[in-house]
Amino acid sequence: MDFRKISGEDIAYFRSLEGVRNIFTDNDNLVIAASDQTEDLRYLPEVVLQPETVEAVSAIMRYCNEHRLPVTPRGAGTGLSGGALPVFAGVVLDMKRFNKVLNVDKRNLQVVVEPGVITQELQEHVKAEGLMYPPDPASKGSCFIGGNVSENSGGPRAVKYGVVKDYVLNLEVVMPNGDVMWTGANVLKNATGYNLTQLVVGSEGTLAVITKIVLKLIPAVKHDLLMLVPFRSSIDACAAVNAIFMAGYLPSALEFMERDAIEWSMKYVQSSGVSLPDDIQAHLLIEVDGNNLDQLYKEMEAISEVVQQFDIDEILFADSHEQKEMLWTLRRKVGEAVKSNSIYKEEDTVVPRAELPELLRVIKEIGHEYGFHSVCYGHAGDGNLHVNIVKAGMSDDDWNNKLPEGIRKLFKEVVRLGGTISGEHGIGLVQKNYMDIAFSASQLQLMKEIKKVFDPNGILNPGKIFAA
Amino acid sequence: MDFRKISGEDIAYFRSLEGVRNIFTDNDNLVIAASDQTEDLRYLPEVVLQPETVEAVSAIMRYCNEHRLPVTPRGAGTGLSGGALPVFAGVVLDMKRFNKVLNVDKRNLQVVVEPGVITQELQEHVKAEGLMYPPDPASKGSCFIGGNVSENSGGPRAVKYGVVKDYVLNLEVVMPNGDVMWTGANVLKNATGYNLTQLVVGSEGTLAVITKIVLKLIPAVKHDLLMLVPFRSSIDACAAVNAIFMAGYLPSALEFMERDAIEWSMKYVQSSGVSLPDDIQAHLLIEVDGNNLDQLYKEMEAISEVVQQFDIDEILFADSHEQKEMLWTLRRKVGEAVKSNSIYKEEDTVVPRAELPELLRVIKEIGHEYGFHSVCYGHAGDGNLHVNIVKAGMSDDDWNNKLPEGIRKLFKEVVRLGGTISGEHGIGLVQKNYMDIAFSASQLQLMKEIKKVFDPNGILNPGKIFAA
Repeated sequence: MDFRKISGEDIAYFRSLEGVRNIFTDNDNLVIAASDQTEDLRYLPEVVLQPETVEAVSAIMRYCNEHRLPVTPRGAGTGLSGGALPVFAGVVLDMKRFNKVLNVDKRNLQVVVEPGVITQELQEHVKAEGLMYPPDPASKGSCFIGGNVSENSGGPRAVKYGVVKDYVLNLEVVMPNGDVMWTGANVLKNATGYNLTQLVVGSEGTLAVITKIVLKLIPAVKHDLLMLVPFRSSIDACAAVNAIFMAGYLPSALEFMERDAIEWSMKYVQSSGVSLPDDIQAHLLIEVDGNNLDQLYKEMEAISEVVQQFDIDEILFADSHEQKEMLWTLRRKVGEAVKSNSIYKEEDTVVPRAELPELLRVIKEIGHEYGFHSVCYGHAGDGNLHVNIVKAGMSDDDWNNKLPEGIRKLFKEVVRLGGTISGEHGIGLVQKNYMDIAFSASQLQLMKEIKKVFDPNGILNPGKIFAA
Repeated sequence: MDFRKISGEDIAYFRSLEGVRNIFTDNDNLVIAASDQTEDLRYLPEVVLQPETVEAVSAIMRYCNEHRLPVTPRGAGTGLSGGALPVFAGVVLDMKRFNKVLNVDKRNLQVVVEPGVITQELQEHVKAEGLMYPPDPASKGSCFIGGNVSENSGGPRAVKYGVVKDYVLNLEVVMPNGDVMWTGANVLKNATGYNLTQLVVGSEGTLAVITKIVLKLIPAVKHDLLMLVPFRSSIDACAAVNAIFMAGYLPSALEFMERDAIEWSMKYVQSSGVSLPDDIQAHLLIEVDGNNLDQLYKEMEAISEVVQQFDIDEILFADSHEQKEMLWTLRRKVGEAVKSNSIYKEEDTVVPRAELPELLRVIKEIGHEYGFHSVCYGHAGDGNLHVNIVKAGMSDDDWNNKLPEGIRKLFKEVVRLGGTISGEHGIGLVQKNYMDIAFSASQLQLMKEIKKVFDPNGILNPGKIFAA
């Protein structure tokens, strides 16, 4: 793609608009908008716009569409696939001023929220009304709900409560040509025309700019219990995941962590809350939730009986709010811990749940063949395993040239197992060259043509999802 | 649209194909394919093809695409919006030979099924393995799972378990140009490219022909309890629906029936199982399900306390399998009962649940204004109310010319209440002229362009969803 540079005239136009709170062209602010949480990638935009009204977003899009200027929407910049990186420079559309919870509809269990609200703040806001918005990505304390919708995020609770797409009822979006529209209706069931809502969910900011989100809520759940189960074999830990389901239990979280994951995370957050005997290879972090505490204790006991069929060490039952928080913090900080430890790449594999042991075996086998070390962890209950490949002693040449072949091989295995190449992080920039593994040429063509329907001039988040 | 007639040469080509079990051009078979369950509409096709392999479907589509012949896919013909009607004649693609459950994956709680399997048979098939496929449209004993996917069907259990779209993981489809592709992967979470799966679900056979369906399953639920609550005021019955949710309960079914609905249904199935005092205006049929029977009895009691705040008569607790079946039969047969009683039109309104009392009030008010009688019933727990408008004493002129204005007014009110014009029946043929109420011109244009991406020649199920 070929875009012209942003001119003084463009900036003057943006300055003339009402409802644009900030227009940044200074280096400090451009640098902030140049990165997200993906590896150490950095692409400097030419201007950062912070609109605060739908009308302003509409005017910006219309102008950029007419003048063929690339626009990259940006949430909190916590993405892991490079979706917010302005790879063709141009405009970063920073949505942080859209930071209001507009309406909690208690009667209908719905909330209308702007995209720039931090996910955890949204959760706390509705919790104060006795309601719950379940999806909770590890970055929930800093990520925006708009980014979650754009990437179709998951998180630990997805195993019981589903992912973001399962909660999005309706979206207000601004099309690349500036048209403002709703994608659906605020109803629980809808058989009226094509499902534009689910087409925009997970489209990574490439189809339209989200300006309002209507989410389904559920009544808040009263209690949860948490336990940490140490396994002497990682493969066993993966196999135990399916054993729990086959025994008829549905935990509200079922997280897998390889030894390195929890060990590095403990160092990173300077915690010594978990003892880590030498023979422990992996942990499962298992949560159950519900409104009947007695019932939950019974469930916890039954699940602990299931995992005791495997070669495990002593189970840690979290017996206070603080201990639960400590365990969850260890889990949530794995990604940052790995990042602080080494240059790394994160792959977001997902397979049918029962294939997890085979997936883990294959990951290690390919690592051996291509000479990379991986730290694996993630939402095992969904079959979703994050594979953090650490550079460590790898040469730059191997890292840049040999590793992509290893990743390619890994993704082929993932697809062979009935899975796909991203469970919740999206494709964005860093996975787009692997899309041909998950999809045939005609599938990719179909997606590209859908992109063209929304964005005929290709100005919205160019360079993402598709290799070329 | 202008299509040429099917020629002898076309028929000869279809005959030359392997994997086409039957080719019908005789009047009896054309008449069968000319109708579904929508009003008394009848559109004769020119040929009915019954393929039994994906390759045959692909060859048929490729040929019809090249020769610009209209193709209307057909399931069991139980649709209520005319989606299976061949309004431009041409080919009916009858999918009944795709009638196999291909694989129940107990380890991953998934099933791979062909579209021509009867929904209830699929449910019984997976139940034998201890699993459950929840969506259960009223026509479950005769409808096909492929039609359910095409219309994004619901049913009574949607209130707790969601609609068809919540269970579809992946689809094998044949594109209008004959390309065969999968829309996604067999995984619980997926952030890989655009959600083609959810674009095809509910697209009413206008985008592609479904040839395989991968559905998520859940462990079978052991127990359910059912009660029928008679209300002296219909508006009260609607208000009680929300009161149950606000009190924190989530029934597995929460069905509303106006007096006429249950009375006509009792006559139709010749049942006297329910006593119907003169002052009863409506009923709620309420089911709870779960694995702990004691817990269910408690829930039932708590819900009965909630409804007792309203002006109700004695609650009927179904105390045997037979009595449950009787009550469910009464509910399921309402549609047929109304149809047997009078020429009628069925509107499939859906609003945010708490707006139900207002919706019912508005329906009756508009009925009064436009001179029509309506029988209302449906999935109140989802805010989904079926409005059966009976012709009865209405003149043909009023029926054909005045009534559509009344329906238009009703749909405008539905949209004003935050709802939309079809909850689970689809738009098909009979609602397409009302799409401009639910969507703006730019929304409709977007949908039409998506249609064009899949089907540039407009041969697949032409004349549906869009007014022109």
